[in-house]
Amino acid sequence: MIEKVKEIVLEASRLMATDAFEIEEKDGMANIVTSSDVAVQDFLCKHLAAILPESGFLCEEKDMNDMSHECTWIIDPIDGTANYSRGIAQSAICVGLRKGSEMQLGMVYIPITGELFFAEKGKGAYLEMIDCETKTTVKPARRINVSQRSFNNSLMCTALPVYHKEHAAVCSAIINDTFPLINDLRRFGACAPELCYVAMGRCELYFEYILSPWDYAAASLILTEAGGIITDLEGNAVTCVDPCGLVAGNSPDNHRRLLDIVHKHYRK
Amino acid sequence: MIEKVKEIVLEASRLMATDAFEIEEKDGMANIVTSSDVAVQDFLCKHLAAILPESGFLCEEKDMNDMSHECTWIIDPIDGTANYSRGIAQSAICVGLRKGSEMQLGMVYIPITGELFFAEKGKGAYLEMIDCETKTTVKPARRINVSQRSFNNSLMCTALPVYHKEHAAVCSAIINDTFPLINDLRRFGACAPELCYVAMGRCELYFEYILSPWDYAAASLILTEAGGIITDLEGNAVTCVDPCGLVAGNSPDNHRRLLDIVHKHYRK
Repeated sequence: MIEKVKEIVLEASRLMATDAFEIEEKDGMANIVTSSDVAVQDFLCKHLAAILPESGFLCEEKDMNDMSHECTWIIDPIDGTANYSRGIAQSAICVGLRKGSEMQLGMVYIPITGELFFAEKGKGAYLEMIDCETKTTVKPARRINVSQRSFNNSLMCTALPVYHKEHAAVCSAIINDTFPLINDLRRFGACAPELCYVAMGRCELYFEYILSPWDYAAASLILTEAGGIITDLEGNAVTCVDPCGLVAGNSPDNHRRLLDIVHKHYRK
Repeated sequence: MIEKVKEIVLEASRLMATDAFEIEEKDGMANIVTSSDVAVQDFLCKHLAAILPESGFLCEEKDMNDMSHECTWIIDPIDGTANYSRGIAQSAICVGLRKGSEMQLGMVYIPITGELFFAEKGKGAYLEMIDCETKTTVKPARRINVSQRSFNNSLMCTALPVYHKEHAAVCSAIINDTFPLINDLRRFGACAPELCYVAMGRCELYFEYILSPWDYAAASLILTEAGGIITDLEGNAVTCVDPCGLVAGNSPDNHRRLLDIVHKHYRK
């Protein structure tokens, strides 16, 4: 299954291959970006349905929300659309497969860097390097794990909520309380790549106030299979079908410390 | 001159070629990183002195601060050392040449992405793509320019001050006041790559509270040669030899709007 999904994701990524530098100076280019999003999503849905006929789809575009099957593909055709439209590397195709109430498979592919992250439930998380042009393997898949860094040596990926600016103040308070206790902050501008960075040990913490399931579903399995912890803002397991905030860490202790800071400011 | 500097910078970057993923799980790896920094700086100083014998050096490592010559090389061997130590792409070799009181040449090379930015005073700013392994040209140098995006469609690269956490509150206030008026924030974790992103039109605004001259000297010329504006927090031209805060924008209007927000919170 994972090999078939990989083949489909890599093929779909060819639809993202546009010279964004040519178009990025235009304002109002959302339509161009959306047409790439839709093209990738259409390709993924068509081919993923073919390899698992009895499956539903929960996707970012076109209000695709069919949860009536045992298996559901959870898809963000381009996570980090703003980055994509500007030629910033951190934009990714995200494909997750949920069976019953659990994620079974997660794949996050970043075409510009050639990083292909994937995991299957109980089988660990992996990073394979792909040639951006030929879509062939440059470095074979290797097992990835979260870092062992302490809280005070951590990088936290975080953001102010771009689609919910009314919640910026509470996020800012949480970030300001965390910053003196850790090494530094990062904001690459896309959820799935940032969760994968935690999974592979580049960063240690992640906090965001509100996200959609397609943003985090695939990456959440990659993170937990790499030894990380991810919950909603209450500290509950993420459902991967509902919008929620995210608190993630490279260890239970570090996750708990970040969650405690969140709880000083966040009330449901 | 620019071709000679390019050759030296690309050769120096081979000294950064270490598999950071192998070592990033260790705490206290600062020494390893610093030894790369020093190796790159030593290489640069030796070879840059040879092509311009009557020059001084202002460098990040080893307290090199010889401003007694007409020409001064201003060097950050690795801007974004934390990123470098973690295998995060945004870390760069920065080489600037100051003659009299003006920057004459700036070069910023990001080895992981192969992006080589450079500018000479009055001759425009350029981006050349370099093969990461062979250090040969993949895509020839092309002229780069700032984007035409409006303030409300801007991405601002910014940070809380990692080495001066006592100033985090004022930075946070400036960021919080700016965020509702623009598109979004980014924090890639290194000054020079972020200024180059503004220069090439990926981002539009930049604010940081306090930086050293080697962080911004080379990139500041690239930005102004690409049509951007960069000043200190007072709105004065940057000296490229003194530490200062930075406010940069893709247009005079956008720079002024950001500077006005800074001035609501910042007093000298």
